[in-house]
Amino acid sequence: MLMHSQRFYTLSASCPDRVGIIARVAGFIAEHRGWILESSYHSDAGANGDTGSRYFMRIEIKADSLPFHLAEFRERFRPIGEELGMTWKISDSAVKKRVVVLVSKQEHCLYDLLARWQSKELDIEIPCVISNHDTFKGFVEWHGIPFHHVPVTSDNKDAAYAEVQRIFDEVRGDTMVLARYMQILSPALCRAYPGRIINIHHSFLPSFVGAKPYHQAWQRGVKLIGATCHYVTEELDQGPIIEQDVIRIDHSDSVEDMVRYGKDIEKAVLARGLRYHLEDRVLVHGNKTVVFR
Amino acid sequence: MLMHSQRFYTLSASCPDRVGIIARVAGFIAEHRGWILESSYHSDAGANGDTGSRYFMRIEIKADSLPFHLAEFRERFRPIGEELGMTWKISDSAVKKRVVVLVSKQEHCLYDLLARWQSKELDIEIPCVISNHDTFKGFVEWHGIPFHHVPVTSDNKDAAYAEVQRIFDEVRGDTMVLARYMQILSPALCRAYPGRIINIHHSFLPSFVGAKPYHQAWQRGVKLIGATCHYVTEELDQGPIIEQDVIRIDHSDSVEDMVRYGKDIEKAVLARGLRYHLEDRVLVHGNKTVVFR
Amino acid sequence: MLMHSQRFYTLSASCPDRVGIIARVAGFIAEHRGWILESSYHSDAGANGDTGSRYFMRIEIKADSLPFHLAEFRERFRPIGEELGMTWKISDSAVKKRVVVLVSKQEHCLYDLLARWQSKELDIEIPCVISNHDTFKGFVEWHGIPFHHVPVTSDNKDAAYAEVQRIFDEVRGDTMVLARYMQILSPALCRAYPGRIINIHHSFLPSFVGAKPYHQAWQRGVKLIGATCHYVTEELDQGPIIEQDVIRIDHSDSVEDMVRYGKDIEKAVLARGLRYHLEDRVLVHGNKTVVFR
Amino acid sequence: MLMHSQRFYTLSASCPDRVGIIARVAGFIAEHRGWILESSYHSDAGANGDTGSRYFMRIEIKADSLPFHLAEFRERFRPIGEELGMTWKISDSAVKKRVVVLVSKQEHCLYDLLARWQSKELDIEIPCVISNHDTFKGFVEWHGIPFHHVPVTSDNKDAAYAEVQRIFDEVRGDTMVLARYMQILSPALCRAYPGRIINIHHSFLPSFVGAKPYHQAWQRGVKLIGATCHYVTEELDQGPIIEQDVIRIDHSDSVEDMVRYGKDIEKAVLARGLRYHLEDRVLVHGNKTVVFR
Repeated sequence: MLMHSQRFYTLSASCPDRVGIIARVAGFIAEHRGWILESSYHSDAGANGDTGSRYFMRIEIKADSLPFHLAEFRERFRPIGEELGMTWKISDSAVKKRVVVLVSKQEHCLYDLLARWQSKELDIEIPCVISNHDTFKGFVEWHGIPFHHVPVTSDNKDAAYAEVQRIFDEVRGDTMVLARYMQILSPALCRAYPGRIINIHHSFLPSFVGAKPYHQAWQRGVKLIGATCHYVTEELDQGPIIEQDVIRIDHSDSVEDMVRYGKDIEKAVLARGLRYHLEDRVLVHGNKTVVFR
Repeated sequence: MLMHSQRFYTLSASCPDRVGIIARVAGFIAEHRGWILESSYHSDAGANGDTGSRYFMRIEIKADSLPFHLAEFRERFRPIGEELGMTWKISDSAVKKRVVVLVSKQEHCLYDLLARWQSKELDIEIPCVISNHDTFKGFVEWHGIPFHHVPVTSDNKDAAYAEVQRIFDEVRGDTMVLARYMQILSPALCRAYPGRIINIHHSFLPSFVGAKPYHQAWQRGVKLIGATCHYVTEELDQGPIIEQDVIRIDHSDSVEDMVRYGKDIEKAVLARGLRYHLEDRVLVHGNKTVVFR
Repeated sequence: MLMHSQRFYTLSASCPDRVGIIARVAGFIAEHRGWILESSYHSDAGANGDTGSRYFMRIEIKADSLPFHLAEFRERFRPIGEELGMTWKISDSAVKKRVVVLVSKQEHCLYDLLARWQSKELDIEIPCVISNHDTFKGFVEWHGIPFHHVPVTSDNKDAAYAEVQRIFDEVRGDTMVLARYMQILSPALCRAYPGRIINIHHSFLPSFVGAKPYHQAWQRGVKLIGATCHYVTEELDQGPIIEQDVIRIDHSDSVEDMVRYGKDIEKAVLARGLRYHLEDRVLVHGNKTVVFR
Repeated sequence: MLMHSQRFYTLSASCPDRVGIIARVAGFIAEHRGWILESSYHSDAGANGDTGSRYFMRIEIKADSLPFHLAEFRERFRPIGEELGMTWKISDSAVKKRVVVLVSKQEHCLYDLLARWQSKELDIEIPCVISNHDTFKGFVEWHGIPFHHVPVTSDNKDAAYAEVQRIFDEVRGDTMVLARYMQILSPALCRAYPGRIINIHHSFLPSFVGAKPYHQAWQRGVKLIGATCHYVTEELDQGPIIEQDVIRIDHSDSVEDMVRYGKDIEKAVLARGLRYHLEDRVLVHGNKTVVFR
């Protein structure tokens, strides 16, 4: 998976599978002398090449190889998209994505994300951090990032999430990251940003849905524990999975040990999943994802 | 985990935790000039050192360092076992374990086990292979191992498993291995050999219990698939887990691809779990295992 | 990585990078109504999109979607290949590759390959097995595969490898697999089949080149050991790497334990690397490989 | 690997192997009603039970189960240590280890260590951070940790490292961690603290010793890259290895991508290796380590 140092556009798209899709799209780009840096294609026809299947693609084009900018690209590409019945978007690597981070009292994902942001490994804007506690106010503000304390109680859920939504809209957030945010979002909030809210769940889903997954894992006596990065939907821990990983444990590990080991997997899986999302490598297909790594 | 080339005895035991267990047991061995090759201890007290917790141990003693044989060891150790309220057994590395393999139509676990047996990597006896199909009759018999074809239909289940049990007893089997045996054993058979029947399930349990786990995994869109080696109990896929592992997949993998990748994990996990069991490294504790690797 | 159940052609190619390669190739295929099942592209320009870089591709086309067969495909595609300065080949999934296996006295890779062949997981022909020992003569012949015993001594190396080459040519071998063949091939043999001889080396190269890598690993005290599948060149263990993997060990593992664990990695890595090669997923580029998984 | 919440003492020791070591040590502890929380033993005799081999052990004892404190334990245990020819030490979990962190311009290991320290996952003192740059002065000081900028040039090496040593001694450091400190310590500094300076090297040693290991890895075309946590000795990258791990890459990854992926492995491997060291789980044996996880 390349990290390009030069400016490029990323076209990501899906459409019904048929003969000639690549030829049509790559032909359009070649016609305008567009230089393709990287391209990936996938048909969900699987082993059968069925008609009725769906086609996915992601193409990175060197920005300065094209004779026009994004607005004109969109205009010129529109007829092709229509012809192919395509859902598509194109983004510009020079425009940083705006990522709002939600956090509670656990530090590991927050420190990890800020380290990546600080070193420009994640080349994003973090317009603000929102938390139901004020634990990390000082740490976040030291980084020059605004911090919003939005307490959540059993009584004020609707109001609290309306406030989260207000802040997210106000700062023009692209993506909301639940970095071990220990609250269940309101259905309204989930519905408001489909495919734009990313959660890290501390189990290898679909095992151990819901609360206290490490306790559940300890109880069952599994030999590996994991973490899952997924899009948030209204159904708890059931959204499309972006990335997962596991770590080995054994009988000598207590629940507390699992919590500790688990942090390392959680932050790594969240960072990978978030990067895939930000680079438009993730295309949602029903309740599953195509991830062009 | 050492594989010793010389003869040794393996004492495996558990008892209520208290002060002085190691001193008592190691003291007994030292008193008789026994040379300890390897020893492992575990208290399930976890982080708290609770009273009420249970203590587990496994000790390998060089056979020729002791002035007596196993029968006398057992006699002399008995009072200590009683004093400590201990469940214990001792085995002799010179006595090969007798492993009966059950198989259906899939080849990978069978080939893998026979390769390990052929090279003495698994230093066991395989008194026979039992199958509900005759697919591997020639292959097994070529290795000089008797093959029993015991068909299983929806009508004859009880009779079929009675026959399996009769054969297992007749050949004095120590362990029964379900090497992708695609039938559910009768409750009677499960009850007859607690902690002695080992299954390889083709999912990362507790995810995807039951039939067609790779289809279930494909449906859910997980990014890793796995396999689980566990003791068989009456409750399907719920027995104590011995070993697990996973392999990475992605959106381009069909169910057939998963089946193919999964085979590699299944045979590796089964081989590891079986070895732990045969070397008395696995101590069952409720529905969980202590595995002294 | 899909395993297609229907007949398809695989075009693999590389050429100097420039604008319009995909458009040209995919355009040709679309023009003839060819249905692309899977396609992968890579530019070694890396992060810079340099001119002077090289472009690689692999495209699977449904055989019955094209109005002509391979011979005509080759004829019609030739001008495009010339125009792009392309090195290319196209193969037919209905024509099984012919794999000659060389083995010495270790069983694990041989059993593993034959199990995959027996179940058609590896859909290949094995026209013969060649060995410098007769250990596996009976086992191989039981499978209906001819076995050639070609002893190798310090005196007869040239003659022995001339004989290996004669047999390989006689059976029209496509690929030669050294399945833990414990001899160093003659330079003449290495030169005769560039990119067609695959070896499994029992270390994580470039660590521990040459003899007794597990002893070297034990000596250095590494915490993981590995295996490397690579193309054989005249320089020992220096050929292009196709696939690698590792397994965790610790201080309690002796050299013998490492040998035993290592077998599991060796056979898995060899099987994966061989499959990539057979499916034309591996494109050699200098002393490195592009592997389109 | 348990993380105990109560106070305990850790006895770590090695001695020539013989009959009765465990009995003698565990007997002493039991005699004083010491409650053993966790204990591990290893003989480097390996598979052979050789005389002439060395024995290693690590025992955690509940502090309040003993009728005396560490000073008296040391006094009473001394004769046993002498009798067994033992090298031993005992530490108190209530006394925090003092870890001095050296860093250059890369952020990932520093953020990671401070996050673990902030949450008390690593229950240590960080009396100061030393750097040859002032990049992280503000970040470190925000955490309330003193920061020392000790520039290192080709001219001032001896003076610079004398200053590092002076600071380390002044703050009574127990362990020095090179958290991607991009300088080679002076031989005098290496010699001053044997087994107390820990480095993270950004390759899977012994592959790619020295500078620019990711460039070397890219050049060789390996399919996995790794990181190694080891004790620093005078010979560059040759000290005893504590922990290693790897991550998969492929042909599409540039050197920059490897650097980015590598960070995740580096910080994880350093954190694990450091924890093993701080919990007295690492016993050095020649140029290798015994790690009681």
